[in-house]
This record gives sequence, C-alpha cells and structure tokens, in this order.
Amino acid sequence: MQIPKISLTARIRKSPYYEATVKHDIKVMSVYNHMYMPQVYHDVMTDYENLTNRVTLWDVAVERQVEIVGPDAATFTQYLTCRDISKCQVGQCMYLPIVDDTGGILNDPIMLKLAEDRFWLSLADYDILLWAKGLNVHMKMDVHIFEPDVSPLAVQGPNSNALMMELFGDWIDDLKFFWFREAALNGIPMVIARSGWSKQGGFELYLQDGTRGVDLWETVWAAGEKYGIAPGAPHGIERIESGLLNFGHDLLPDMNPWEAGLGQYVHLNMPGDFVAREALLAIKTAGIKRKLVGLTIDGEPLPVNDQNWNVPGYEMDEARLTSFTWSPRYQCNIGMALLPMAVAEPGTRVTVNTPHGHLMATVVKMPFSKSLG
Amino acid sequence: MQIPKISLTARIRKSPYYEATVKHDIKVMSVYNHMYMPQVYHDVMTDYENLTNRVTLWDVAVERQVEIVGPDAATFTQYLTCRDISKCQVGQCMYLPIVDDTGGILNDPIMLKLAEDRFWLSLADYDILLWAKGLNVHMKMDVHIFEPDVSPLAVQGPNSNALMMELFGDWIDDLKFFWFREAALNGIPMVIARSGWSKQGGFELYLQDGTRGVDLWETVWAAGEKYGIAPGAPHGIERIESGLLNFGHDLLPDMNPWEAGLGQYVHLNMPGDFVAREALLAIKTAGIKRKLVGLTIDGEPLPVNDQNWNVPGYEMDEARLTSFTWSPRYQCNIGMALLPMAVAEPGTRVTVNTPHGHLMATVVKMPFSKSLG
Repeated sequence: MQIPKISLTARIRKSPYYEATVKHDIKVMSVYNHMYMPQVYHDVMTDYENLTNRVTLWDVAVERQVEIVGPDAATFTQYLTCRDISKCQVGQCMYLPIVDDTGGILNDPIMLKLAEDRFWLSLADYDILLWAKGLNVHMKMDVHIFEPDVSPLAVQGPNSNALMMELFGDWIDDLKFFWFREAALNGIPMVIARSGWSKQGGFELYLQDGTRGVDLWETVWAAGEKYGIAPGAPHGIERIESGLLNFGHDLLPDMNPWEAGLGQYVHLNMPGDFVAREALLAIKTAGIKRKLVGLTIDGEPLPVNDQNWNVPGYEMDEARLTSFTWSPRYQCNIGMALLPMAVAEPGTRVTVNTPHGHLMATVVKMPFSKSLG
Repeated sequence: MQIPKISLTARIRKSPYYEATVKHDIKVMSVYNHMYMPQVYHDVMTDYENLTNRVTLWDVAVERQVEIVGPDAATFTQYLTCRDISKCQVGQCMYLPIVDDTGGILNDPIMLKLAEDRFWLSLADYDILLWAKGLNVHMKMDVHIFEPDVSPLAVQGPNSNALMMELFGDWIDDLKFFWFREAALNGIPMVIARSGWSKQGGFELYLQDGTRGVDLWETVWAAGEKYGIAPGAPHGIERIESGLLNFGHDLLPDMNPWEAGLGQYVHLNMPGDFVAREALLAIKTAGIKRKLVGLTIDGEPLPVNDQNWNVPGYEMDEARLTSFTWSPRYQCNIGMALLPMAVAEPGTRVTVNTPHGHLMATVVKMPFSKSLG
C-alpha cells in the first residue's frame, strides 16, 4: 500500500511552529486535538537516535490546554479526577487521570497548578473542554473554562539540560522533575516545566503567545546546534520502551484506572468530591477482570502497531494487544496488552495476533528493564 | 513544500470501509472524529467530474453517531439544540445546530429520529458525545448516550437514484429528501436516508454492522459499474458551490446561529427547554455584529483554502475569509466570509487576503446562483 498524503484543510489547525516544521522537511504528520502534529522528520530510526543520543525539538502544540480559572477552580478541577490534588503546590505538575461517571478514562493530561485558583490540563487527543463545560452547566461553579493561547514546544534528549541552561540560566538545573516556572526569552512569554513524553530527560516550553512560535523555535534551534539538535516528535518506539501509555492505544474510555495500572492515582476516600467516585467504588467492590500489562513478543522484529490486535480466544473487549514494537534498547519485541486477570501475571505465556501472524508472548513487569535483553 | 504523508497509528480508527478505500488507491486522507477519512482518489478535478456527472461512493464512516435512547430521549435531544424538534416524525432527518450555553455552535449534525425515544446525531468533527454526557451527569435524564456501531457510506451524484433503485427496489424512488428507512442488503443491516453532503443528489447508508463494511462497499460497487461509479469523498469545491457550511471552516464555536445564517433554526419560544435559550435571548436583544456571507473574488483561479484568511483592517475575530475556491460551475472564484454587518450587504465590495495577495471581492447571496457566472 502507498501511504496517502495528509489533507491540508482549514478544519485542522496549524500550530504556531508549523512553518518551522515544514522548513525542516517534515515527512509524516498526524492530527491530534484538531491540529497537525509532526511525527517523522528523517526516518524512524534516525529520529530515535537523535532523541536518545543528543537533543530534539518537538512541536507538541497539539497538547492543547484546558484552563480552569476562578474562585472554584480547585474544587472543579478536583471534580474531574480520581487523584487527590489537594497537596499539589503552585509550580507543580501532576499526572491526572480524567475519569467519567462510569469510571472510564477520558484522558490522562499533565495538570499544571499555576495559582491557587488557576490550572491547566495539558491534554491527550479528546475534547475534554466539552466534557468540562458540559459538567459545569448545571454545577454552576464559579470558574471560567476555556482553551488558552498556549502551545507547548518540547526539548527532549540527554543534551536538553545543557542546552536549556545556556538559554535560560542556572536555575534550569535546579528545576525538579514535574515542577515549572514562568520565564521569557527575547520577550516571548512561556512556562517551562521539566517534563515531556519521553524518558530521555527534557523540558516542555508552554509558549503563551501563538504569534511568536517560529521565533521561539529558531532561538532554541540556534543555541542547540552545538548540542547536535535535530527536529523530533513523540516517538512510537521510545515511548513504549519507556512504558509511557498512549491514550487511544493503551488507554481507552472503556477502561478504568485499575485496569490501566493507574490504581495508585485513585483516592476514593479523599475529602474532595469527584464525578467518578460512585462508579469507582462499585468497580472496586466488584473487582476487575482485565489488566494492562507489559509483554515481550517472540519472533522477528515487529513494526510499531498501527491498530489494536486481537488475542486469539478472546473478544476485543476482553483482551487486546494495544502497542508493540521492536526495541533497539532491549533487542527484542516489546508491547502492552489488556489481558484477562487469569493470564496477566508476569511470566505467563500467551498467544497474540500480529502482522506476522500468531506469536507467543510473555507477560512482564512495566516499566520494562534491562533484564529483558 | 512536499506534502507530508499521513501517520498510520492505532490512535486513529480505521473505518469499516478502510480496506476498500486502500484498494482504490486513496491518495489523500484526513482525520475526522478520531478516524481516517478519504479525501482524494484520482485528483481533485477528476473526483469532481465523477461526483457531478456520474455517481461516487464515499466512506464517510467519520460521521460518527451519538445515539440518545430512553424515556427522556426526546427531551434531552431537544435540550441540545435551538431548533424545535417536536414536529419531527419517526423516519425523518433534521439539520440540527448544537448550541452551547453561551450561544456558540458546537456542531451541525443531521438528526435521525429512529423512534419516539431514539435519536442519532450524525456529527461533524467535535466530540459531542462528551458534551452530551457531561450535561447529563447532573440533569440525570433517563437516557443512554453512546456511540453506536454505525458507519455511513454515501452514494452521491446524478446516477445515485438509478443505482439505489436497482439495489433496493422502487421504494427508493419514493423516499423523500431528508427521510429514511431501515433496510438490508444480503443480510447487512442499515438505515438508508436520502441525504448527503453534496447537492448532486444521493443517499447515506448507515451501516449497522462494522464487520460488513467491505461487503457493503463491494456490493454497491458491483451494481454501480454500469452507472460509471467511482470512489469519491466530500468535495471541497462542490460543497462551496452548493453553499454547504463546513464546521471548522465556516462554523466555529465562537459563532452564534444568527451570525452563521442559521436564524431560521432558532425557536426561542418553543415549549421545550434547551441549554442555549438564555444566551440566545441575550444575543437577540443585543443584536449581532458579524455575519457569514457568500463572496465572489476577483482574479486568477484560487485553490481551495487550507486555512482561514484575514480581512485587512480587521482582527480575525471581527472578520475572516472562511472558505474559497475556483468554481468550475460558475467560472469565477467564490467563497464564504464572516464579515462585519456594515459590509455584509449583497453588492458590497471588500478586500480580502488570499494566497494570491489582497484581492477585491463582492458580497453575494447564498446559495450561489447561475447569475454569478
């Protein structure tokens, strides 16, 4: 099959960094939160090498924000999630499962607490703005809920710390993981967090003026040349190796937090009210039948999956292979699967369907570790 | 610029017709409601000729449905829209602006009334499922709101009636515009409506079993060969010529129904309750400052726009050029723009920005008519 080109249409928004990504000869694009998202610049393996050995610049403006601001902002934000946010400090990030009134996962954003009464949710691909606004029509909380002019640019890779220190100063080195600070560069306003959707180390620069996107890209690029900077993007192989879940692959709204392995973020007894409490209490009582696990998969190197695959003997809502790839780090095929509890223990052998036919696989602990190799 | 390829990822769903579209050598794809959408098969003008002269088969499974079913379904569906649905009969479709509590347009689906207590909303690209479910958390209406296994296939073009009569029988000829009937073909269950996103005549086949997509495609294709059937898709040029609004181009959530020229669908005094009433009453009292109008644009043939363009002298929230194309039908450039009321009267000359620079344009009535040519 000849891979089709992507349609260029006004319906899908261009990011503030769009011209820079085009100039760097972007080869593969996707669509995420109604916006174009760069995916591949050179080829999958060159992009992987750049990310894991040097430093890469990612247009992740598609991580659209929902801003919740006003006297009831903390109460309303708490209502959206099963995780207790009461101890989150201003300047801190939190991984935040958004869970609906059936216990289903609607999203897994990073929350940024900008002030006691102001929060951002940095979203995966689903219109949580509509969910939040719909909820509040009848709750009538005193909050303003909207998509602000905020477009993250990620600097990811082992050289990111040195590059960012050169651009912003020594305070960068003191910025702890999942903490952020407001900053500016040549008058370009942004929030800088030590975070990002890789485990190669890095930062997300939450640009707060969409007209300055190319300026920001070019400034970081110029300082990055001596660190071997290259254009990059969220990377299908690296994120699986690092055990990062991808909403839409590994997390779907038909899954609850325990099934997804996110039980540590369920705080049923916290004082704050949240929409999922009743459903999650019922699920806890009934117990879960499925669980997301890591796998190693036998056989020749597999490509990154472009669809969920079935597990022979089960329907897709009982079991499914949600991600897989050949891993350069572990020198074997690894993946993630939603499996029935009976076969979800580490060490269990299961058969999975793949583009290479039925293959044997072994359940392993996530995050993956060197013992796999 | 080299147009990038589209990323193939499990995050974006494949339609039940996906394999058929790949077999027909689909060249350009988009993403819509988290699903791949075919856009161009041959080239833009060949696809246009096939649609306007013969008959085309469209994979529009991306028109995802929100189903609302249960004792309160009619009351809840009414709550989502400013249009009075009380006179809609079972078997009838309605164009239905979905309007939020600020008066903003969130979507413009076709509603299908399947039973007194069962409705489908056939959506444009925005997660209205989340809006509807969010609203009902606190309304607690007795309804089930979900995305059913329904995937429309459109048969569009002047030969569509003859083809569909051959496949389904004489009753097709009696099916009125915006009415539908349940039917089956080789045991494949579907709902057939005389509707579709072109003005070339046609039908939408709402497939109700996602495992039978390729079967349905192949069956219609085989019967269509003598009618000159070709693969097709919603067409950027034809829809502008026909004055069909495109949510995301011409309709955005910052617009209210009067600004969008949809005032005939605002029934402020109907008995049914709806979420937008208070906001729309306030907007009606204040009056509108902007209006969506048709344009003819001077100069050399323009391509279809891939972004909204500005109107010199105004900010984008005051005025914007939302669609344009060279029109084979009218032999001139036509388009749509949101303009300040002072320059929105037919006959007014305005300057617009385009890929060909500043051009003069003339406000005209929509739908466009032969008098333009």
